[in-house]
Amino acid sequence: MKPATLKEIAATLGLSISTVSKALKDYPDVSNKTKKLVKELAETLNYRPNAFAVNLRTKESKTIGLVIPEVVHHFFSSVIKGIISEAEDKGYLVIILQSNESFELEKKQIELLANKQVDGILISLANGTYDFSHIKAVMNQGIPLVMFDKIAKIVDCSKVIIDDQKAAFDATQHLIDTGCKRIAHFRGPLTPQNSIDRFLGYKKALLHNQIPYDPSLVYILDSMSFEEGQHFTKELLKDHDDIDGIFINTDLVAIGSITELNKRNIKIPEQISIIGFSNWFMSSVISPSLSTVNQPGYLMGKKSFKLLYKEIKKRKEGKKINYKNIELKTDIILRDSTKKL
Amino acid sequence: MKPATLKEIAATLGLSISTVSKALKDYPDVSNKTKKLVKELAETLNYRPNAFAVNLRTKESKTIGLVIPEVVHHFFSSVIKGIISEAEDKGYLVIILQSNESFELEKKQIELLANKQVDGILISLANGTYDFSHIKAVMNQGIPLVMFDKIAKIVDCSKVIIDDQKAAFDATQHLIDTGCKRIAHFRGPLTPQNSIDRFLGYKKALLHNQIPYDPSLVYILDSMSFEEGQHFTKELLKDHDDIDGIFINTDLVAIGSITELNKRNIKIPEQISIIGFSNWFMSSVISPSLSTVNQPGYLMGKKSFKLLYKEIKKRKEGKKINYKNIELKTDIILRDSTKKL
Repeated sequence: MKPATLKEIAATLGLSISTVSKALKDYPDVSNKTKKLVKELAETLNYRPNAFAVNLRTKESKTIGLVIPEVVHHFFSSVIKGIISEAEDKGYLVIILQSNESFELEKKQIELLANKQVDGILISLANGTYDFSHIKAVMNQGIPLVMFDKIAKIVDCSKVIIDDQKAAFDATQHLIDTGCKRIAHFRGPLTPQNSIDRFLGYKKALLHNQIPYDPSLVYILDSMSFEEGQHFTKELLKDHDDIDGIFINTDLVAIGSITELNKRNIKIPEQISIIGFSNWFMSSVISPSLSTVNQPGYLMGKKSFKLLYKEIKKRKEGKKINYKNIELKTDIILRDSTKKL
Repeated sequence: MKPATLKEIAATLGLSISTVSKALKDYPDVSNKTKKLVKELAETLNYRPNAFAVNLRTKESKTIGLVIPEVVHHFFSSVIKGIISEAEDKGYLVIILQSNESFELEKKQIELLANKQVDGILISLANGTYDFSHIKAVMNQGIPLVMFDKIAKIVDCSKVIIDDQKAAFDATQHLIDTGCKRIAHFRGPLTPQNSIDRFLGYKKALLHNQIPYDPSLVYILDSMSFEEGQHFTKELLKDHDDIDGIFINTDLVAIGSITELNKRNIKIPEQISIIGFSNWFMSSVISPSLSTVNQPGYLMGKKSFKLLYKEIKKRKEGKKINYKNIELKTDIILRDSTKKL
């Protein structure tokens, strides 16, 4: 049965459409008797207010957009889960778009969400994004926007992040504390803020411990894949025979590296220690299990939505929005790919 | 700058609102000169048609809803990726809701999407779902709906599935072909169709090879987690000391089982062979790597959206929808957790 329309309810009861509409909205100028009658029939006939008309009236879509580089990714899917669970709590729906790390796609998607008149946008930037005018454009149109994880420092908006530099410092320091002296770094591409910060943390830890920084030990990765982990491990072993530790930008790459070292019977952590970043589920089940930085994806998703929700409310009330920066704590998870202290 | 309204464009040009509106829609009764003028100003002022008003007029939201049991899950996130990539191609947006395997939540979410007037719904049922009136209700309201992966046989709608029974038969047959004689099965809960079918495939393969079916070798799991994989492996070893193979309903559980067997120094596959189901990425990187059934998630997502899209179009054209059943091929991925043929 198709849901009944206002017109059908009005015709059945011999009332005007506007009386039926007012009755459903509890207007004071409709008698209680009529209200009861209308509401009962509306329920029986499965009446449902037209969502588009409601949106037009309230100027609210109760929908937000989420632009994320990649869905099949343990960290990002944890973030998505955090966002949709929090959004559901507040009666919001979430449209998810995947930028595939492409700047062009991300621009198109932001424009699409603005045209769709979502109430707000959450975004983690693509690696390819080097210009932020698309972000500024939607913000200038009054759409609340919160960045998380992969952010742009120069864009003035609310952000939910971790302290990548500190986390990377701690990870590198752990390698040093457990005896590593020649430490390589597999870093991400040059533009994303988080790969810059993780590199800076690595460098800072070396200098802090009077270990000279050697640029030839830093490998710049592109796709951050399992295969790149294997490939750059081969390169590293070719280039340097004195390596005793690697700090790797993300767990997936670290798992590729461990697979390659295992294949060559290089003992982890005795000959080479490995520490990753993210704490993917699989990092705990590979052999040897991977020491890593725990990055709280689910919590980041929840906090990001909460922040956006506050901005949406403030905007509705016509209040000024003060941008916030939330920094979530990380910690080092010690497993078997690094030596014991 | 906030986008301009029709009213502002009209005021600037000294035209009526309806002339501006007609000019933007290329009505024949507006001169080309006026159209050019209006369109140029609209672009300069960043005019954007009100999405809610457009929706009200076209009765299309260009949005579909997706209800899925779990987001942080390699198979389902691959499905999501397939769906959103195909939807983007066709200019559709996807709202994603996670049922957490709960019947109650799933019902609420289906109702929410119907209220939101999405153009169609894709759903993989929660393990908890035992009644399908919520599905039938939205279909009766004329909303196209396609089920994928976790479906209900008794609901008459389009479906995209794999042949779970055949895939499970093939997996069990591989254990038998490589010499296993006492084969246990870790199955999923009792209601979901796919866990029923995988169990039936297991049983059929035993009977086909004149191996007596022993119900005490079948363990019914609930959450299908890594921890359950460890737990039921312990139980199995306590209950039976003559097991030489296990067919496990999903890779994550199989990885739990491998972890437990490794811990006890039970040799895989020499003492016990393991075969999983899904082909998660991590199955290829654990030690020993896991033989498994390859379940094509990304393709399933793409096919599901395509099918839904066809139904949305047919509905718009007022044509009859004929439900389709698409069955995707699976294959066995042979790795190191089973013996060589």
